[in-house]
Amino acid sequence: MNKQREARDARHRTRQDEIIAAARRCFRQSGFHAASMAQLASAASLSVGQIYRYFPSKDALIEEMVTRIVDSRVAAMSEQTDASHLADMIARRDTLNEEDEMLMLEVAAEASRNPRVAEILQTAETRLFHNACEKMRVDYPHLSDAQRAACVEVLAVLVEGTAFRRLTTQKASADLLHTLYKQMIHDLVKPSEDK
Amino acid sequence: MNKQREARDARHRTRQDEIIAAARRCFRQSGFHAASMAQLASAASLSVGQIYRYFPSKDALIEEMVTRIVDSRVAAMSEQTDASHLADMIARRDTLNEEDEMLMLEVAAEASRNPRVAEILQTAETRLFHNACEKMRVDYPHLSDAQRAACVEVLAVLVEGTAFRRLTTQKASADLLHTLYKQMIHDLVKPSEDK
Repeated sequence: MNKQREARDARHRTRQDEIIAAARRCFRQSGFHAASMAQLASAASLSVGQIYRYFPSKDALIEEMVTRIVDSRVAAMSEQTDASHLADMIARRDTLNEEDEMLMLEVAAEASRNPRVAEILQTAETRLFHNACEKMRVDYPHLSDAQRAACVEVLAVLVEGTAFRRLTTQKASADLLHTLYKQMIHDLVKPSEDK
Repeated sequence: MNKQREARDARHRTRQDEIIAAARRCFRQSGFHAASMAQLASAASLSVGQIYRYFPSKDALIEEMVTRIVDSRVAAMSEQTDASHLADMIARRDTLNEEDEMLMLEVAAEASRNPRVAEILQTAETRLFHNACEKMRVDYPHLSDAQRAACVEVLAVLVEGTAFRRLTTQKASADLLHTLYKQMIHDLVKPSEDK
């Protein structure tokens, strides 16, 4: 019995993965707002009815997609080792998964007009923010909670601002940027008595 | 004759303004990709034919919209006085015109799939970047061109990252952020012998 259920669950997950992959393609192509459930179904080679069995709405689908993107960002963050490495990634605009970034742009644009998507974005960002604060607590125990929250906010601005600017040509020297960002991040987390 | 032409030009500009205002509403509501010329025409109380007389394509319309947004950003930049003021604006997330920001999110999402819109975004960003470098040259003559370009890039990341994060709740203290950003911006533009 258990084996049967396991097999069924595995099939369910595989099908979910296929639908999410097809939805990502559709959202990239037409935008979240313009992509219809019929289009998604066709891209996943399924009927609309089958899609609804896995995701009751387009919002539910985007929620699962965003959850997965945040999961992968949390995992990437836990591998982040030092300030110089992070500074280098920002300076070279090599911050996040590029396709994920473009999809999050789509989500952000949609969030500005759809309250349900705004809520999904909020929940995802809060989870990421708290994870980052928790990592900071381990790496920089000398900072207060309020200081850690401010550091996480500044780092998020740097990472997301850089991701957003990926759509434009980099006009500054990556080496100079690396030096500037390294110093910035160093100053951000240095012991508070020096501040 | 000249008076007739002036009156005609004024009418033309008024009509253009009305179309841009209607297009902004449509793009905010449906997204750039999903908004059709028929929808734009209806929002502007014009026929599709009349819209085409002013803008030969949706891309031409978005180009004019982006040009106007950049014009207003260049104007705002020239009024920027000191680092503390800029730090305060970033800390309070009071950076740019909120509706403009949301429209630029739309443009960015569209740029990731439409090469013509990507080009419009590039051109606009280059104009803004060079304007900022020129302002830096006047305000901070001790910096080299390369240093100025790096400063402008960092400031752009801070401003645009902050604008992007406006869609999420601010979890850090604005006062702490203000202190951090003020120090960052100060260090960014300090005389190079101290660097």
